[in-house]
Amino acid sequence: MKAEHCAQIEQAVAAVAQKAKTGIHHFYFVACGGSNAFMMPVQYMFDREIGIPASIYTSNEFNYGTPKDFDEHSVVITCSHSGTTPETVAAAKKATEVGAVSIAFSNEVDSPLWKAAGYPIHYDHGPSAATTDKNKAVLYALAFGILKAVAPEQSTKWESGLKALDALEEATNRTMKKFKDSAVRWGKENKRDTVIYTMGSGANYGEMYSLSICLFMEMQWIHSSCIHSGEYFHGPFEITDYDVPFIITISNGATRHLDERACAFCKKFSDNVYVIDEADFDMTGIDESVREYYAPLVAGSVVREMVDSIAHERGHDLSVRRYMWQMEY
Amino acid sequence: MKAEHCAQIEQAVAAVAQKAKTGIHHFYFVACGGSNAFMMPVQYMFDREIGIPASIYTSNEFNYGTPKDFDEHSVVITCSHSGTTPETVAAAKKATEVGAVSIAFSNEVDSPLWKAAGYPIHYDHGPSAATTDKNKAVLYALAFGILKAVAPEQSTKWESGLKALDALEEATNRTMKKFKDSAVRWGKENKRDTVIYTMGSGANYGEMYSLSICLFMEMQWIHSSCIHSGEYFHGPFEITDYDVPFIITISNGATRHLDERACAFCKKFSDNVYVIDEADFDMTGIDESVREYYAPLVAGSVVREMVDSIAHERGHDLSVRRYMWQMEY
Repeated sequence: MKAEHCAQIEQAVAAVAQKAKTGIHHFYFVACGGSNAFMMPVQYMFDREIGIPASIYTSNEFNYGTPKDFDEHSVVITCSHSGTTPETVAAAKKATEVGAVSIAFSNEVDSPLWKAAGYPIHYDHGPSAATTDKNKAVLYALAFGILKAVAPEQSTKWESGLKALDALEEATNRTMKKFKDSAVRWGKENKRDTVIYTMGSGANYGEMYSLSICLFMEMQWIHSSCIHSGEYFHGPFEITDYDVPFIITISNGATRHLDERACAFCKKFSDNVYVIDEADFDMTGIDESVREYYAPLVAGSVVREMVDSIAHERGHDLSVRRYMWQMEY
Repeated sequence: MKAEHCAQIEQAVAAVAQKAKTGIHHFYFVACGGSNAFMMPVQYMFDREIGIPASIYTSNEFNYGTPKDFDEHSVVITCSHSGTTPETVAAAKKATEVGAVSIAFSNEVDSPLWKAAGYPIHYDHGPSAATTDKNKAVLYALAFGILKAVAPEQSTKWESGLKALDALEEATNRTMKKFKDSAVRWGKENKRDTVIYTMGSGANYGEMYSLSICLFMEMQWIHSSCIHSGEYFHGPFEITDYDVPFIITISNGATRHLDERACAFCKKFSDNVYVIDEADFDMTGIDESVREYYAPLVAGSVVREMVDSIAHERGHDLSVRRYMWQMEY
């Protein structure tokens, strides 16, 4: 990881450690759409590993329906790729003003979000960027850094978590060899579908949520909904039919049972279920204790291959928008 | 409200008040599907009114991905209509065993959930039940009772909140006069739709979530997704088109701005938007300070009229299921 990113993360972690001395009451993850989904696995990780509440909000729900527990004892972590999402900038500013630790991720140094937050952290983006400097790696470095700072006695995972960053790229490459052909084929076979469901739980929910709202709805104009595996049997499963497509992640961690159960049923009644079973991932080099948190990052690459394929098959480039960036809203 | 219900609520509130003496660290709302959606407005209310974290989980996410903050300083509120949902029974049992205050709502006295919880509360159901003894009223009586018990200094709303229960039925009846014709017409005009989106925020999100997963997906086998108004512009809005149907609640409370903004855009590009604007509700008898929390209960009646109408038009009775209760899963 670049020295610049390391230094920014260290400053943020130091601020969290300092705040811990007078008490951290709540971690708030606040962002919109893909940036919100991006932070979901870390909200899940904090919820599981740290005995301090961790909640996630879409930015304007946080700004307008502000939780009463939010105050100077909070740590607020925001993200906006461009650093210009107005409601996320407002949330970071609100956090700074109240005296909370206000940490922000962005691809743009000196963007409005960058200036609004007390502890901005940059990440690289694009085909030439190293995996260890991209958004997810930088986010995880912060997350495991905070874990070490606030709850070293509660978890021995931070060391493994930080170490895993270096193994992520190779784990992804090895896993992609297994999934690539079927992922490409999936795009071809599903190009005429008008509705695609995604499903997951625990650390994977965010990846399935972003697949649904960003990749299908936003970038392909395909109807979609993300179902939590734990909710599937309590309503959504009645929509299952032989020709209804599902993409399901099966966690390699705590919530695996939920995913397995939903997937087994779904496969009985739908002939179109693409399963991303994280037990099939080659996670060598990543310690068993943190594989659950790293698996969604690898799953993200499988998902991206599927979406690249369907976009190509449909002649609908992923960069096309009809409203976003085209007009005021 | 029946004496039996009042007594059960009083016992639960007393247990919460007792727990508050040694410190309540977290309120957990835990249930599945419709029962989960049912508690969402109260989770929102607690988040807004009480300076203690309030989180909501689908039951098996809570059971398998158990948050680290969950312990004997927790209050866990569960719900299952039949009292037999295995994962919700397990959650209530887990709460009881750890020494948390374990409160459960059910229509079935002596059901497994009833026995698993320390403080079971019954509600009435069906056409002959009084509004003040049905699930939502009984839940709100508990919620405002807890508000009084744990945060009287933080909120003067509990008195208005409890009083509003008596005004709810008439507010609903008056509001339904305004909405009934258009709700019935909506069913007729949308009977051929294969995908219907719902949208809302704040106190209304749960109502829109249950409309999507229970009423459309489960009871009508219509594809659906519930979009948070704050997320609409960050992905989902690209799916908007002239013939894509949306049902949008516009809050009369804190998050109104989110809903108004999403609705205004949506109406520009879809010719099929049904708007439930809570500013149009006749909430006489319900104090201004708690109208935000009561509005979703009234909106629920509008929604039910729409769904009764579409079910009738499609000849697909709301009681029909192909999987639920038909087989083991």
